Amino acid sequence: MIRLKYHTPGTPPATLLPVGTGGCAPVIRLIQYDKADYAEHLPGSVEELDALLDPKKINWIHVCGLGDVALLRALSARFHVHPLAIEDVLNTTQRPKVEHFDNHLFIVSEWIHPDGEGRLAIEQISLFLGDHYLLSFQEEAHAGLYDPIRQRLKSGQGYARGMKADYLAYALLDAMVDQFFPILEDVGGAIEEIEDELVDRPSRATLHKLYDSRRALLQLRRAAWPQREVFNALIRDETQLVSPEVKIFLRDGYDHCIQIIDILENCRDLAAGLMDVYLSSLGFRTNEIMRVLTVASVFFLPLSFLAAVYGMNFDQSSHWNMPEARWPFGYAFFWLLCLLIVLGMLVFFKRKKWL
Amino acid sequence: MIRLKYHTPGTPPATLLPVGTGGCAPVIRLIQYDKADYAEHLPGSVEELDALLDPKKINWIHVCGLGDVALLRALSARFHVHPLAIEDVLNTTQRPKVEHFDNHLFIVSEWIHPDGEGRLAIEQISLFLGDHYLLSFQEEAHAGLYDPIRQRLKSGQGYARGMKADYLAYALLDAMVDQFFPILEDVGGAIEEIEDELVDRPSRATLHKLYDSRRALLQLRRAAWPQREVFNALIRDETQLVSPEVKIFLRDGYDHCIQIIDILENCRDLAAGLMDVYLSSLGFRTNEIMRVLTVASVFFLPLSFLAAVYGMNFDQSSHWNMPEARWPFGYAFFWLLCLLIVLGMLVFFKRKKWL
Amino acid sequence: MIRLKYHTPGTPPATLLPVGTGGCAPVIRLIQYDKADYAEHLPGSVEELDALLDPKKINWIHVCGLGDVALLRALSARFHVHPLAIEDVLNTTQRPKVEHFDNHLFIVSEWIHPDGEGRLAIEQISLFLGDHYLLSFQEEAHAGLYDPIRQRLKSGQGYARGMKADYLAYALLDAMVDQFFPILEDVGGAIEEIEDELVDRPSRATLHKLYDSRRALLQLRRAAWPQREVFNALIRDETQLVSPEVKIFLRDGYDHCIQIIDILENCRDLAAGLMDVYLSSLGFRTNEIMRVLTVASVFFLPLSFLAAVYGMNFDQSSHWNMPEARWPFGYAFFWLLCLLIVLGMLVFFKRKKWL
Amino acid sequence: MIRLKYHTPGTPPATLLPVGTGGCAPVIRLIQYDKADYAEHLPGSVEELDALLDPKKINWIHVCGLGDVALLRALSARFHVHPLAIEDVLNTTQRPKVEHFDNHLFIVSEWIHPDGEGRLAIEQISLFLGDHYLLSFQEEAHAGLYDPIRQRLKSGQGYARGMKADYLAYALLDAMVDQFFPILEDVGGAIEEIEDELVDRPSRATLHKLYDSRRALLQLRRAAWPQREVFNALIRDETQLVSPEVKIFLRDGYDHCIQIIDILENCRDLAAGLMDVYLSSLGFRTNEIMRVLTVASVFFLPLSFLAAVYGMNFDQSSHWNMPEARWPFGYAFFWLLCLLIVLGMLVFFKRKKWL
Amino acid sequence: MIRLKYHTPGTPPATLLPVGTGGCAPVIRLIQYDKADYAEHLPGSVEELDALLDPKKINWIHVCGLGDVALLRALSARFHVHPLAIEDVLNTTQRPKVEHFDNHLFIVSEWIHPDGEGRLAIEQISLFLGDHYLLSFQEEAHAGLYDPIRQRLKSGQGYARGMKADYLAYALLDAMVDQFFPILEDVGGAIEEIEDELVDRPSRATLHKLYDSRRALLQLRRAAWPQREVFNALIRDETQLVSPEVKIFLRDGYDHCIQIIDILENCRDLAAGLMDVYLSSLGFRTNEIMRVLTVASVFFLPLSFLAAVYGMNFDQSSHWNMPEARWPFGYAFFWLLCLLIVLGMLVFFKRKKWL
Repeated sequence: MIRLKYHTPGTPPATLLPVGTGGCAPVIRLIQYDKADYAEHLPGSVEELDALLDPKKINWIHVCGLGDVALLRALSARFHVHPLAIEDVLNTTQRPKVEHFDNHLFIVSEWIHPDGEGRLAIEQISLFLGDHYLLSFQEEAHAGLYDPIRQRLKSGQGYARGMKADYLAYALLDAMVDQFFPILEDVGGAIEEIEDELVDRPSRATLHKLYDSRRALLQLRRAAWPQREVFNALIRDETQLVSPEVKIFLRDGYDHCIQIIDILENCRDLAAGLMDVYLSSLGFRTNEIMRVLTVASVFFLPLSFLAAVYGMNFDQSSHWNMPEARWPFGYAFFWLLCLLIVLGMLVFFKRKKWL
Repeated sequence: MIRLKYHTPGTPPATLLPVGTGGCAPVIRLIQYDKADYAEHLPGSVEELDALLDPKKINWIHVCGLGDVALLRALSARFHVHPLAIEDVLNTTQRPKVEHFDNHLFIVSEWIHPDGEGRLAIEQISLFLGDHYLLSFQEEAHAGLYDPIRQRLKSGQGYARGMKADYLAYALLDAMVDQFFPILEDVGGAIEEIEDELVDRPSRATLHKLYDSRRALLQLRRAAWPQREVFNALIRDETQLVSPEVKIFLRDGYDHCIQIIDILENCRDLAAGLMDVYLSSLGFRTNEIMRVLTVASVFFLPLSFLAAVYGMNFDQSSHWNMPEARWPFGYAFFWLLCLLIVLGMLVFFKRKKWL
Repeated sequence: MIRLKYHTPGTPPATLLPVGTGGCAPVIRLIQYDKADYAEHLPGSVEELDALLDPKKINWIHVCGLGDVALLRALSARFHVHPLAIEDVLNTTQRPKVEHFDNHLFIVSEWIHPDGEGRLAIEQISLFLGDHYLLSFQEEAHAGLYDPIRQRLKSGQGYARGMKADYLAYALLDAMVDQFFPILEDVGGAIEEIEDELVDRPSRATLHKLYDSRRALLQLRRAAWPQREVFNALIRDETQLVSPEVKIFLRDGYDHCIQIIDILENCRDLAAGLMDVYLSSLGFRTNEIMRVLTVASVFFLPLSFLAAVYGMNFDQSSHWNMPEARWPFGYAFFWLLCLLIVLGMLVFFKRKKWL
Repeated sequence: MIRLKYHTPGTPPATLLPVGTGGCAPVIRLIQYDKADYAEHLPGSVEELDALLDPKKINWIHVCGLGDVALLRALSARFHVHPLAIEDVLNTTQRPKVEHFDNHLFIVSEWIHPDGEGRLAIEQISLFLGDHYLLSFQEEAHAGLYDPIRQRLKSGQGYARGMKADYLAYALLDAMVDQFFPILEDVGGAIEEIEDELVDRPSRATLHKLYDSRRALLQLRRAAWPQREVFNALIRDETQLVSPEVKIFLRDGYDHCIQIIDILENCRDLAAGLMDVYLSSLGFRTNEIMRVLTVASVFFLPLSFLAAVYGMNFDQSSHWNMPEARWPFGYAFFWLLCLLIVLGMLVFFKRKKWL
Repeated sequence: MIRLKYHTPGTPPATLLPVGTGGCAPVIRLIQYDKADYAEHLPGSVEELDALLDPKKINWIHVCGLGDVALLRALSARFHVHPLAIEDVLNTTQRPKVEHFDNHLFIVSEWIHPDGEGRLAIEQISLFLGDHYLLSFQEEAHAGLYDPIRQRLKSGQGYARGMKADYLAYALLDAMVDQFFPILEDVGGAIEEIEDELVDRPSRATLHKLYDSRRALLQLRRAAWPQREVFNALIRDETQLVSPEVKIFLRDGYDHCIQIIDILENCRDLAAGLMDVYLSSLGFRTNEIMRVLTVASVFFLPLSFLAAVYGMNFDQSSHWNMPEARWPFGYAFFWLLCLLIVLGMLVFFKRKKWL
């Protein structure tokens, strides 16, 4: 549940270390475009990349895989990235944030998406937004995030081709935020399903489903709140790197974050309410079961005692021993007593409103 | 419970798509008025509308139905609406908000009203407030919101005819806020009813009523808080589009929102308190039932054992076997024992304060 | 519980309507005073009142009863009251607030006082504070609020005669705040009583008393918080209507509000703690009862089974059927068995710490 | 629990009334000192005091007992104290606060200290800090607060003799804050004790101890938060009455308040967690008891039924009536049946994991 | 749980007292370095230290042990430390904070690290950051904190040798923050383990583990929040003591604090959710046990009663007494009755959905 990557205490700050388990060798993809042209390259080294960069066009350098520290060091040298920033790129459990450096913005964001097995995968996307370039890092090779944007750039669809690198950064952030909506719908659906189950046939499985939903909500909240702050920081940015036109788009992204947070809080309240309903419903059932047990016991305890009494074997030769047993109508007398006891109980239980 | 309309992730920003299920073909209604005149038109196209618009009068263009994307695109071109704004008009699950554009304000609001079947319907109303026009969008054809205002305009009743488009926008927002009050009264009444039921005869149905009330309160809260922000943003607006006289009215609307939120919070606290009462009341009942069961069992268990003992069939030829059974007053001795046991129990239970 | 007066949705804003149920015909009382003089009048109409007003003195116009809309309209015309403000006077369920108009302050406050029947009555008091006048409205004819102030003015006791209308407004607000203290004392006393009851003899009645106290605290809180804001707004007021000397007094009133809120929050925490105590105490009792039941059952179940075994009627002619019953010491053997079972149980329960 | 002193509603503001129950006759003690000298006086009247005051020295006038309104009025006239301030001195249940008057600061603080009987006593200390004097009021004659400071002044120990009246005020406030620490230690110790008891042998007494601790924490919190505000207000004070050197000391006092509040919140969280542990622990025990009862009942109910069946007295002359009873191995057959039932039960309970 | 060191109330402010239990004699270690050189000294006295100090180099004076008040007084005189600050160094339960003095910053921080026995040890580290020196105090002789930094300085690894004393202070603070991560991982792991246990086999031990985790979270939170404030205060520092380059590093430390707090809040929510799961799970089990008990009892109570009835010994000579017992098929009739009763019960329980 807790994603956490960190240096062993005692390591000096800004140390570059390969990412914990694995972290495949990076693939660098350079996409160069302006209004007119579009080109894709797969440079094999930073030198090759450097030769390809064209400050007159928008250069999108997307790095997939964080396994090669030397290459990252070379890249960060080329783009004047601060060692602490590149450390944050490697320790892929950062909180989303925006940091200002001299000639670029450093944006950390989280891409939350369903993995195939019904759980949520969280992947850190790190962006360096410069004047004419966007440098993006992704730990694993999921194309689901950047591929639609690449397709749109290639086809010239949408606004991206006519705008600068800041719009490209927005497009990536927006794609991450958009991913929340279907997940929210799933969680919302799960909660409604749990609600129906609680009404019809509560079981321990329902309870665990509810706990899982609450945990998913916690995870989503933890991602959504700082994401909102990322948009907010970009809107309020005072460098020239984010243009006013893109800020209108960022405002829209910010509104989406607010909407997501709003729905998350709503779901949380609903889920908390369902827990209350579950507990009360359980209490009600226990109460009802107890009532049946008590009523049955209280009816039959005196009757059984009476029957046991007349089953005793006292010496009948004494007139004082169990005279009722010798009465000709003793058996009828016994049933009459039972009837009286039952009637008395009925009155008692009616008055208690247990029947 | 969760209203959510969104693009599939991967769609470029500011894409216009017809609304999910249905979204009937739009009907455009133009209401033109000033202090002296009042006229209504039903232009069939945006060109026809354009010809009819008169900047010297107040032009209220009300669009019912969002099914025709081409027409919306034409309208948004005519009124210089930003693509992101028109996208928000279409995705009718926005949070209420105010956005500033160059020559108009974009206001999103929610009209919450009871549908016929005892539930709450929420409908998004989008307003574009310009200098001499108000452009309003509504997804479905409920006349309940705008018809009273139209009647008032026609008859010249109230302040609206003598004022500008900003007052018209206020009148619409005010009508939406006013709708909260009867709903609040219903919810408040429901809570009081639940309270009485909890005291008299708590059942699982009561519990579900309580959960429904809490859910309705959540829904209302989610609508009321951003509505307050809408009023607040309009009051603080620094463009010329909202005049000082109308700000006094908006302040009144803001006060209504505060009052609504206040009552909502109050209801929430009451409902939470009722849940506590329900749980404690249940615990108390279970406790009482248990006491009756325990007292009855503890009285009859030893008595029944005693009766069973004297029902045993040990060979009476041995003097050592059940001599009591052969006593002439054995039966009386048995009842004496029973009496002693009962008295002992009474003392025990009295001391425990269970009787 | 929820006090709510509102127009039917669809009514134009600032409509004057007679108050819901009743609202008796208004009685206007004019009290004119300065350092030297004091006079009381009961003008029958607004014209008569107008003739009596003397801008050199302090004019306190107190209107009791809101049943006559025409008269209110005339009054509001005379004192240049905004239609929205007079609407708030009529809809007597406003939240306490201060509003600034051109030449007067509009203050809405709540007078919370015990009605005769052990509940809290809340009455809205609306004040219009002008340069040389205070116009006050009250829905019902309780003299409890303004009569002591009138007496003090008449007798020249206190500071009021030497000061302006702003002090008079303060005196009214202060009287409303002072009313909180005895109510708080009652609620605090009730909570202590409930605490004692919970320790000695918890019953369902105690639970309902606790719920009632919590509800009263909610009501008081809902009144106290905005009252604090009223004082705060008056202290921060930048018009000339509130003088610096009176602000010192208002600061004192503000401190009283803080103190009231502080005690209210304290009571709330105490009441919430008591609910926990009640629930745990109930759980403890149930636990104890269960233990007695279980111990008794577990002792007697095997004993009764044993007695039933030796009560069976197997054919004694077979040597294999119940040989114990034919032993000369069979009965003693039975009691020995019982003793062993009881001893075993005692060891078991001692180890479980249930005895 | 709720300390509350107030005027009867209807009393004019700033009325001086002797304190509720008792309030002994005041004793005035004047301590005059500078770097070189130290003197103590016990003036009998305000005139006598006035004659003794020396503006070149620091004059500490400590008034013990608030029973004599006339003397207080004379004192407040001598030191130009506002009637509202002197009213706050008398109503000794004020919240700690700082108020600015023309030539002095009015500081209300609370001295919380254990009374002899295991409870907390709260006493209001009111300070008027002027240029060359400190006027302090205390309701009761506990010397515990001011005596150590007097001793330090007398002996010239510490910083006080070399500094002004503001340091003296700080010293008094600091002494009040220092008193919190041993109390906190007691409460913390009590919570740890409760924790151990909950683990070992939870009883209803433990529950009441826990409730008492929570109440003490509430009381301490209610005192600590405004005390922090007092320090804060004095640090931010812009008059000349508090010098920069003393502000360093006040900052230290402020840090102590923060530390106290921090520990209080911690204790609160711990106490709340203990309540949860108590409830769950109780639930666990009840569950365990129920399991024993159920297992025992479910074992013996069918066995007892079987024994009762073979105790029936059907006419053995019919071959159809209870043939088992006539079997030579009927008794063995009965025990075989019992064994089978017991084995079946064991399997059932093992599968349920109740054994 | 509550760490608290304080003076006895009544002690004058800024009194230096040896630390409560123990506090070993201090060892002073002086580390002098610049880009080129590195040297370590162990001066025996403050005079010796004074002679060694070289304002052209960075002087790190680390004091281990607080047991010798005279030496501390000499040190504080040498470095112009305010008596209140040195008092805070001695009372080692301060909240982390930053205080500005004339020529140095006083930083209090907490080093939280696992002691050997599975608990968390908290140690106060006090730093005085001057122009060319860092004076650090530690109560106990754990080298775990400063040793890695010393090694890095010695070897010239990392950035420290090329930077000023402010970077050294950052390196110490960073080392303390880094220590949180493995602890967080442990706590997170413990919570996941508890979750698994709750699902499989909840016991009272699990409950106590959960309570321990919650307590550890409380402790960590109490340390993390003020630590964040320390970084924040240093970033916002306006003296020349903290250089802009180091502020970038401090910002990184601040981000780590945020991340830690974020994870802590997450764990808290998870732990609170687990408590709910535990309680509901317990309720569910109790409910299930009750159901078995009730079903068993309700089946066998009437059957046993019936068997007891036919075990009664009424005089068979009367035709009215127990005629069934004389029927040739009486026994079969009995079993038929039993069958009917069982069938009726089955229908009843099926309808209740208890089977």
